[in-house]
Amino acid sequence: MGRVIVDMSPSVDGFIAGSGVSPAAPFGDAGHRLHRWLGLEGITPAPADLSAAQGMFATAGAVVIGRRMFDVGIDRWGEGGAFGLPTFVVTHRGGEPLVRGRTTFRFVTAGARRALEDARGAAGDRDIVVAGGADIARQLMAFGLVDELRLHVVPVLLGHGTALFDAGSRAELEPLWVEASPNATHVTYRVLLP
Amino acid sequence: MGRVIVDMSPSVDGFIAGSGVSPAAPFGDAGHRLHRWLGLEGITPAPADLSAAQGMFATAGAVVIGRRMFDVGIDRWGEGGAFGLPTFVVTHRGGEPLVRGRTTFRFVTAGARRALEDARGAAGDRDIVVAGGADIARQLMAFGLVDELRLHVVPVLLGHGTALFDAGSRAELEPLWVEASPNATHVTYRVLLP
Repeated sequence: MGRVIVDMSPSVDGFIAGSGVSPAAPFGDAGHRLHRWLGLEGITPAPADLSAAQGMFATAGAVVIGRRMFDVGIDRWGEGGAFGLPTFVVTHRGGEPLVRGRTTFRFVTAGARRALEDARGAAGDRDIVVAGGADIARQLMAFGLVDELRLHVVPVLLGHGTALFDAGSRAELEPLWVEASPNATHVTYRVLLP
Repeated sequence: MGRVIVDMSPSVDGFIAGSGVSPAAPFGDAGHRLHRWLGLEGITPAPADLSAAQGMFATAGAVVIGRRMFDVGIDRWGEGGAFGLPTFVVTHRGGEPLVRGRTTFRFVTAGARRALEDARGAAGDRDIVVAGGADIARQLMAFGLVDELRLHVVPVLLGHGTALFDAGSRAELEPLWVEASPNATHVTYRVLLP
């Protein structure tokens, strides 16, 4: 059975989005800052960044995302649909599956846990990557359903925004991999029982 | 002029103490967990941990701490007084300087900023280490008076406790040094203007 991996880019103070989140600005006033390690805004990714980026979906068999991420992303991702993998969208609004290139989006109205179960069915022995948003990650952490955290810690203190963790995110962690660049410190943790 | 360095051991979710902080349990229910990378509880520090521990006060000419840390520490630190450096205690209660071995504690009632100025006078060209608590660090961050953050990020999610950063801690950071062990990820950041 594959692992459940939360993959996110938080600030040093733990926010995965800034203030003023809206469909036009999905990461609020901090979107570019938190993701430029991927090569935005003229930043040249370092070898550690490229390695982290290439590793994101390399072992994945399915993806779980939240509705906001879907709404914001679907037009930007274009005909390929971004992930090239079965993708399960946690949402209050159902709907028929949407096919974009190699990506099929399925809408799950029974919560994050159910979306994960559906993703497991699609992923087989491969991993499931939870790519956003923070609320989905927090719910799955609270259920004890996350096996690994892949954090790309961005060297900025935002002061406010959407927190990746909350009081339900209690766990002992085991560092599996650390690699740093000037753009981000990439740390993978195994999640152990609290 | 020396640098002002905040040196702390936060959890991955940014807490430098757990719940239930008291004089008997200065770091609440998380004290040992956050500091065992220094060699507590049968943990053997790795080379990266030893290097980080030895570096803490290696360049320091003075130390700034809060009153709680003083109250809790003064009996535990013994005759040497812990730091072996001029130490300035931010407090509402004044008092005569206290000498313990090579450490002289001075009590500053005019706030964290003033304690830093006094520490600068004592440190000369050497660095000033702000060793705790979080409230002192946050105040100095908000004033833009911190040059470096040395974070020993401990692989645990506490869920609650005393946060190292708050809304006033906004800054762009530049990673200067990263070294990881199974016990902690040691990251030094230069603090740039927000």
